[in-house]
Amino acid sequence: MTDLWAVTHTQFDPQHLQHAETIFTIGNGYLSTRGAFEEGYPGDERATLLHGVFDDAPMVMTELVNAPDWLALTIRLNGERFSLAQGTLEAFEQTLDLKTGVLTRTVRWRSPAGDGATLKFERFASLANEHLLLLRCTVTPEFEGLLEIHAALDAHAYNEHGAYRLAHWHWLDQGERRKAAYLLVRTHGTGLKLAGALRCQINGTAVQAQDMWHATMVPTQVVQLEVKAGQPVVAEKFVALVTSRDVEVDRLVDTAVEHVTAVTTWEAALAAQTAAWQAEWERCNVIVEGDDEAQLALRFNLFQMLIAAPRHDDRVNIGAKTLSGFGYCGHSFWDTEIFMLPLFSYTSPHIARNLLTYRWRNLPGARAKARANGFEGAQFPWESAATGEEVTPTWVPHFADRTQLVRIWTGDIELHISADIAYAAQQYWQVTGDDEWFIQQGAELILDTAKFWASRAEWHPDRAGVPPAAGGVYEYRDVIGPDEYHEHVDNNFYTNRMAQWNLQTALHTLAWLKNQAPDKAQQLIGQLDLSEQRLAHWQAVIDKLYLPVQPNGLIEQFDGYFQLREIDAAALEPRSQSFQQIFGIAGANEVQGIKQPDVLILLHLLRSEFSAALVRVNYDYYTPRTDHTYGSSLGPAIMAIMACEVGLPADAYEHFRRAVRADLHDVRGNADDGIHAASAAGTWQVMAFGFAGLRLTPDGWHLHPRLPQHWKRLSFKFCYRGEWQTVDLTQE
Amino acid sequence: MTDLWAVTHTQFDPQHLQHAETIFTIGNGYLSTRGAFEEGYPGDERATLLHGVFDDAPMVMTELVNAPDWLALTIRLNGERFSLAQGTLEAFEQTLDLKTGVLTRTVRWRSPAGDGATLKFERFASLANEHLLLLRCTVTPEFEGLLEIHAALDAHAYNEHGAYRLAHWHWLDQGERRKAAYLLVRTHGTGLKLAGALRCQINGTAVQAQDMWHATMVPTQVVQLEVKAGQPVVAEKFVALVTSRDVEVDRLVDTAVEHVTAVTTWEAALAAQTAAWQAEWERCNVIVEGDDEAQLALRFNLFQMLIAAPRHDDRVNIGAKTLSGFGYCGHSFWDTEIFMLPLFSYTSPHIARNLLTYRWRNLPGARAKARANGFEGAQFPWESAATGEEVTPTWVPHFADRTQLVRIWTGDIELHISADIAYAAQQYWQVTGDDEWFIQQGAELILDTAKFWASRAEWHPDRAGVPPAAGGVYEYRDVIGPDEYHEHVDNNFYTNRMAQWNLQTALHTLAWLKNQAPDKAQQLIGQLDLSEQRLAHWQAVIDKLYLPVQPNGLIEQFDGYFQLREIDAAALEPRSQSFQQIFGIAGANEVQGIKQPDVLILLHLLRSEFSAALVRVNYDYYTPRTDHTYGSSLGPAIMAIMACEVGLPADAYEHFRRAVRADLHDVRGNADDGIHAASAAGTWQVMAFGFAGLRLTPDGWHLHPRLPQHWKRLSFKFCYRGEWQTVDLTQE
Repeated sequence: MTDLWAVTHTQFDPQHLQHAETIFTIGNGYLSTRGAFEEGYPGDERATLLHGVFDDAPMVMTELVNAPDWLALTIRLNGERFSLAQGTLEAFEQTLDLKTGVLTRTVRWRSPAGDGATLKFERFASLANEHLLLLRCTVTPEFEGLLEIHAALDAHAYNEHGAYRLAHWHWLDQGERRKAAYLLVRTHGTGLKLAGALRCQINGTAVQAQDMWHATMVPTQVVQLEVKAGQPVVAEKFVALVTSRDVEVDRLVDTAVEHVTAVTTWEAALAAQTAAWQAEWERCNVIVEGDDEAQLALRFNLFQMLIAAPRHDDRVNIGAKTLSGFGYCGHSFWDTEIFMLPLFSYTSPHIARNLLTYRWRNLPGARAKARANGFEGAQFPWESAATGEEVTPTWVPHFADRTQLVRIWTGDIELHISADIAYAAQQYWQVTGDDEWFIQQGAELILDTAKFWASRAEWHPDRAGVPPAAGGVYEYRDVIGPDEYHEHVDNNFYTNRMAQWNLQTALHTLAWLKNQAPDKAQQLIGQLDLSEQRLAHWQAVIDKLYLPVQPNGLIEQFDGYFQLREIDAAALEPRSQSFQQIFGIAGANEVQGIKQPDVLILLHLLRSEFSAALVRVNYDYYTPRTDHTYGSSLGPAIMAIMACEVGLPADAYEHFRRAVRADLHDVRGNADDGIHAASAAGTWQVMAFGFAGLRLTPDGWHLHPRLPQHWKRLSFKFCYRGEWQTVDLTQE
Repeated sequence: MTDLWAVTHTQFDPQHLQHAETIFTIGNGYLSTRGAFEEGYPGDERATLLHGVFDDAPMVMTELVNAPDWLALTIRLNGERFSLAQGTLEAFEQTLDLKTGVLTRTVRWRSPAGDGATLKFERFASLANEHLLLLRCTVTPEFEGLLEIHAALDAHAYNEHGAYRLAHWHWLDQGERRKAAYLLVRTHGTGLKLAGALRCQINGTAVQAQDMWHATMVPTQVVQLEVKAGQPVVAEKFVALVTSRDVEVDRLVDTAVEHVTAVTTWEAALAAQTAAWQAEWERCNVIVEGDDEAQLALRFNLFQMLIAAPRHDDRVNIGAKTLSGFGYCGHSFWDTEIFMLPLFSYTSPHIARNLLTYRWRNLPGARAKARANGFEGAQFPWESAATGEEVTPTWVPHFADRTQLVRIWTGDIELHISADIAYAAQQYWQVTGDDEWFIQQGAELILDTAKFWASRAEWHPDRAGVPPAAGGVYEYRDVIGPDEYHEHVDNNFYTNRMAQWNLQTALHTLAWLKNQAPDKAQQLIGQLDLSEQRLAHWQAVIDKLYLPVQPNGLIEQFDGYFQLREIDAAALEPRSQSFQQIFGIAGANEVQGIKQPDVLILLHLLRSEFSAALVRVNYDYYTPRTDHTYGSSLGPAIMAIMACEVGLPADAYEHFRRAVRADLHDVRGNADDGIHAASAAGTWQVMAFGFAGLRLTPDGWHLHPRLPQHWKRLSFKFCYRGEWQTVDLTQE
């Protein structure tokens, strides 16, 4: 592995087709396209997903729609269809260049009749013009005869649900303008409109009008050529996609045609692409010396985050699987705020701001959810899509028995996301110093979530074990914490403490606002009804929230956790299933095995509030109880940071490796469904907060380097309050 | 209305597009195609459904798959796309010729640019060769210029589920053989393969190979013509569909191509079609004089049944909505045995036998269902599809709140279908005298369902109200009867009495079999374990089954029905909702309003077992409690027969009219989803058993004519034990 900017497969492995499609995803923050083959392959999951283009779907409520397939390219050599499912594959290489975002595949193939050719496919999603998709295929025949190329824009793109496939697009119009084929379609339920335009060139010459097939839903440009052995043919396919989220409906087709006809040459578009990516890596590159695998894997994870991050749209968010697969339907979770936001707040504040503004725009949905549940303020949905309403499925089919359904409770009672969003807003502000955004949007996020927490707190005057002098406690009962193996628990410590933090921060925010932006403070006081009485109630909840800590510093994850049956995790090894799969949903609820660090992630988020000794006690207690390998993919990055904190560098590196290889090496066996975004972005946190020990304090930023032993150098940049900082660490 | 063989619309009504599509369905017993427009229209539900071609679907378990669309025909006049959604419609007529099964549409249309043309579309599904579909379009331009015709076979055909659409087909292959375009696809979950072949002629000349668009999934033949005003252009499109249910997979494409190339001319195919339909009507025609509406509507209902009835396949059944729409996913219910079978047993015994053999073939599924529920014998599924396993959805989304689900109990506890199937088997035998079938299959159906009923009966020694001398009673608790407004009821009289009939008939069958086919009797005794002990238990259940009748003859529909709250049905009028929609699912369970006759249908089926006085008492009691207009569409035909029985001819005619107009006039507002098959076939029963009073007794058939007052003549034929009988009644 010499080029630490390229992910390469030199073998075609049909057994792991969909995994390769996931990791060879390209994108530009507006859309992503999985690395499926242009010519198709049985069982492929070809998909292009656009931010914000959601449609209704059974059970899962709403999902990102698989856009018209712009890759479709049928190639016939002397009448025989090129496909790796037939003929002879003589050479294969697929490479994703992380530096430029170009995916290349070179194939030497021989047809069943014996006609050979080398085919080189290159593609990229333009970062310079996010509506533009470019594909180039160079065919070098070893035979003399007929070469046919059919380049389609195929609106029969389906959303894969395993047992079934949904068709979201309805035909509206298609035709030809300025030598481009165009197509106009709309989604079934939400009525979003999408225009696509397609233009092809063969050896630099545009395909003629008479060589277009206007087949319904599948406009296709077609070329037939007499070819000679050794003389390459270059086919270029340019596609533009534009939706009614971007421009007025009556401008859709023209806009798509304009984008696609504005491309002069492949080379010019590639030059713009290279320049745009250079600017990205200027901000975000991480240099690791002494660990080539980590170097490449870190860049791969950063690449996957950068292609998923909306640059010009603050009405969308990043889904748990980015835009790289159908997993979780493009829905966004707390993954964004707790796992992804730090990367962007520190390296790409314009992206972080877009993501947080999405939450602010969706406050009406969060308020509606709180009201529907009988509470005040803003209760953010556990799963969020286009509108900010709760889109967590309430029921999903049981995987083993289709007549049975499993009730999903996270949308009802996994409350902590509201505090997580407030936390991310405050962190963004601390890192960037973006007072303007904080005044206009961030403060409202923090205040209205606090209002929710105060209304949701239950007063229990007679809680056992609470000194009578206290007169009672506030509690949060019937919740789910970050560890989702345990449902319907009371006083999840993470939830309670983050709620308290949210309320405290809200009071500080209001005080700051009254001082710095008194008009805004008055507006919010009126709008959110922040009366003195209400603020006094907030203070009472802060003061009397139930947050028990054992004398030795050990924290019980929730009421009764210590009484659950212990498990011998080591005795379960080797395993390829999660604790929950092994014990069952009900069984896992009754043992101590946890899906991910729960107490420990709180200690990470509010690190300065807890002593090193307390951290160590809890690290030692919870680490052996955590399902590191098949539990949540969110866990390993946090575990790595906390292992750094307690001075266990070898353990830290093991957890880091689990996170950074999650998708590249499919260590959990489910990368087919898409990139594990929280894990990918979490690797940046391990690098920065764990290995470099980056911490913010009121007087600035500090480093506490704890590099893995074999790392010779770690270097990265970040932007602190508008000023770029460079970190460059070596082993001392 | 002069031609009483044609259903005609002379206006295009986009508000009722899908209703028109349903009633203009054509078919041939192998497949049906809804009457959607060749060129498409926004919101249409174009569908071709093939018997037995099921695929997995969420919630509904399995559904008939919308086959590749063979209608697709794009026509451009001087570059403008013909569509009723634009331009000017100057004349419109759509006619279904019931005598030949040809659907014709004539349209005079002017494009937005002013180019006018008359377009005549004709189509039929060949009854002479059930794989063959034919379409002809005659365009008579009023302009000089360019006429383009694109004729596609479009495998992007979706199953409509309202909120979403499923895509079932995967591409396998496509190409060209013998001037026909072909396509090979497979279903997503069940892996059934379908080949389609397409061949077009323009003015009698085959479209050339270079005029084919091999767009993926959408092979299209294309013609461009310079046309002159007044000179018609005739485009003919022939399509063949064959599936892996019909021939070996490696013969699929060749077989489809053979069928489509065997068509010499439209005229020859039409002649074969006309002859085939003449034979159908020779058997099935009904003549009514003095009531043109009834005459035409009866023929329409018969036509819809005849195109849905499998002639060459005994592995399929007729769905509740025939093959004419997506309603009930093509699943079969008791509708077949109780409502459709009489029509076929009397007029088309070869079809009746196929339908009953389907049940016999699915005995393994029925046995598996009984075993899974802890019972013996054969418990037939409430909803049945390809395999005979239970395919009733267990949950369906609540129509008003997508986070809520409604539990469907019919698949669990609507037991009576097992007796209904036994009843139909015995009736078929009685009508046809088909001893061979009865010995080989019918007897086993009756015996194994009896075995189920005996094992399902519960012994209750202490039932209140039962004389102590009896020592106890057998009961069937927790069931649903024909009236599905009342779930989880005990001792539904219909269920109990039909179970008793099933057990009695089983004993008679075994006795007959021992006499007539002793080898078969011994085989079944061994196979089904029909020990003396078991038969004694059957007799005990027969003797002690709980079947209470009031002294005046009134029968309580189920335990406690009389105690339910009465409703004032008249006070709810006028209404456009069912009782269940008005009262809610739970509310309807608690009032006396019923979805359909329940006791009365039992009295119809076992008419000779009950006195005229008892029939009258129950008719008078239950008629005002029945939801005739928006309850079950199965009800009106039975009500009409029973009204004849009690001598209320005006009432009988009113119920008959409700049944016979159900789809033609969409009296229930849901004909969009497909033909109400039970109602359609039920109209034949009203005609035969009600108005003509046809009854079988051990010594032959008898008539008790009760013609509607204004009918001058009623004539029909039926086949009794191999001999054709003609009924020709006039008012005496």
